[in-house]
Amino acid sequence: MQKIVIHEVGLRDGLQMEKQVVPTEQKLKWINRLIDAGVDIIQVGSFVHPEKVPQMADTDKLFAELTKNKTGKAILSGLVLNEKGLERGEKCGVEMYCLGVSASETHSMKNTGMSTTEATERIIATAKQAISAGKKVQVSVQSAFGCGFEGVVPHERVLGIVQKYLDAGLKNISLADTAGHATPDQIEKLYDAIYKLDSSVEAACHFHNTYGMGLANIYAAMKIGVQNYESSIAGLGGCPFTKVAAGNVCTEDFIHALQRMRFRKEINLLKLIDLAKEFAGFFNREMPGLVYKSGPIPMNQ
Amino acid sequence: MQKIVIHEVGLRDGLQMEKQVVPTEQKLKWINRLIDAGVDIIQVGSFVHPEKVPQMADTDKLFAELTKNKTGKAILSGLVLNEKGLERGEKCGVEMYCLGVSASETHSMKNTGMSTTEATERIIATAKQAISAGKKVQVSVQSAFGCGFEGVVPHERVLGIVQKYLDAGLKNISLADTAGHATPDQIEKLYDAIYKLDSSVEAACHFHNTYGMGLANIYAAMKIGVQNYESSIAGLGGCPFTKVAAGNVCTEDFIHALQRMRFRKEINLLKLIDLAKEFAGFFNREMPGLVYKSGPIPMNQ
Repeated sequence: MQKIVIHEVGLRDGLQMEKQVVPTEQKLKWINRLIDAGVDIIQVGSFVHPEKVPQMADTDKLFAELTKNKTGKAILSGLVLNEKGLERGEKCGVEMYCLGVSASETHSMKNTGMSTTEATERIIATAKQAISAGKKVQVSVQSAFGCGFEGVVPHERVLGIVQKYLDAGLKNISLADTAGHATPDQIEKLYDAIYKLDSSVEAACHFHNTYGMGLANIYAAMKIGVQNYESSIAGLGGCPFTKVAAGNVCTEDFIHALQRMRFRKEINLLKLIDLAKEFAGFFNREMPGLVYKSGPIPMNQ
Repeated sequence: MQKIVIHEVGLRDGLQMEKQVVPTEQKLKWINRLIDAGVDIIQVGSFVHPEKVPQMADTDKLFAELTKNKTGKAILSGLVLNEKGLERGEKCGVEMYCLGVSASETHSMKNTGMSTTEATERIIATAKQAISAGKKVQVSVQSAFGCGFEGVVPHERVLGIVQKYLDAGLKNISLADTAGHATPDQIEKLYDAIYKLDSSVEAACHFHNTYGMGLANIYAAMKIGVQNYESSIAGLGGCPFTKVAAGNVCTEDFIHALQRMRFRKEINLLKLIDLAKEFAGFFNREMPGLVYKSGPIPMNQ
């Protein structure tokens, strides 16, 4: 049976978009419950400048606490944007680094002040440093399936970045559908092209459900052999300031679908659903996830 | 390019679940707007007993009005449960009859007071009468992918009913995921088995998005060659009396995804989105559809 790895990113990609800064103690409780439920990798936070994203200001502290008294098997990942982030990460015990560039020039300039080419060089240098330090590393291509600013992102642009990653020996590569534009047919084509560049690539994906295509895209990725999936508890990560209701693919909806297809039945879905309910209570609004509202299909059905 | 036919069922499968009885004049306006937007088939209502489902009591009147001054090319379909429904339908100008049985004994008994076997005989007899009258007919298997009462519905049960339909010369066959239990892998297996029974079958599908798998299931069906899709404007058809937020696959979300994949670009998505917004206003609640909230991805993207 195909291996499916779950990378929970809600506490980073979700919480960074919330107005409310969540207290560190609360985050620790949530992370420990995610570990307890049995997800494989948990993205704890992002090493951005604390003034730019105050929601992520406690990332170093979170890692220090979590690695001091480590429970469970989950790998703790952190997003870094540059060498400075890596330095911080090395001091507090990050186990896996996630770094990325945007395939859209406009998105890249807005996010980093650098062109895609410059950003790719910087990210590859940082990724190599992290690997030298003996750490697990995942590199990503953001806006890989389309961009809210530029629209269509040609596959050649994405494949060009992927080739540079591969040339640098970076094999764990995630494609992120930052704008939610991806369609299943596009996913088949792009991952197929990547597997043709290097059949030993450890492909990952990060899909959004902005337009309802999240699980369809995941299924297309599964069919083509992608093993690593990033998703977000309760579907956190929709922008609460706009009318866009749905954010990242919702972890518990995804696990529910997976378990219906007999994958990853050892993950405790009910614990994830309880946690999603708690998020809805904490933020006092309806979350994009569906299964926490409907309840799961009973196991014997 | 694969042919994809859109059968809009919101005014039947959606409105029959609403507390509020919608005035006939309002329904006519909505149906005319659906015709204008370019969907292929519109399910106008259901020929049930008006006391049982008062929301559908004006079905005869709707057909009479719509066929009197017919505009557009859309085929007008109606759900009939028995010979009595067919008689009513023949008087008011139904263009396509939809009839079905449930593959779940419990669901069948609750719905019709008959076993699946008895119900199948009745439905086949009625369907044959409709065909003799020169009408288009679609027969369905409800609870084809699982049942809220019984749980797992063995594929053999579904295929047994399909075989009886085929033996009776009924080739337009829809599988309905009444409970929302279907998964893409199951869809591949079941439709594959049906195409093996008769490769010339005109397969259709009716999926719900209860647990978020709606578009994933549709994509699986597209890949295996299914041409006929039933969906519901704004995602109408979730039960507004329970916490289950999502109902039928949402038409405009589906069309949006299709058009991103270059299918059916002649359908006017913006008109469908406007209509979905109107439903949210009319029922004064948020609808399950996502695209009417987020707005579509601009055409040039």
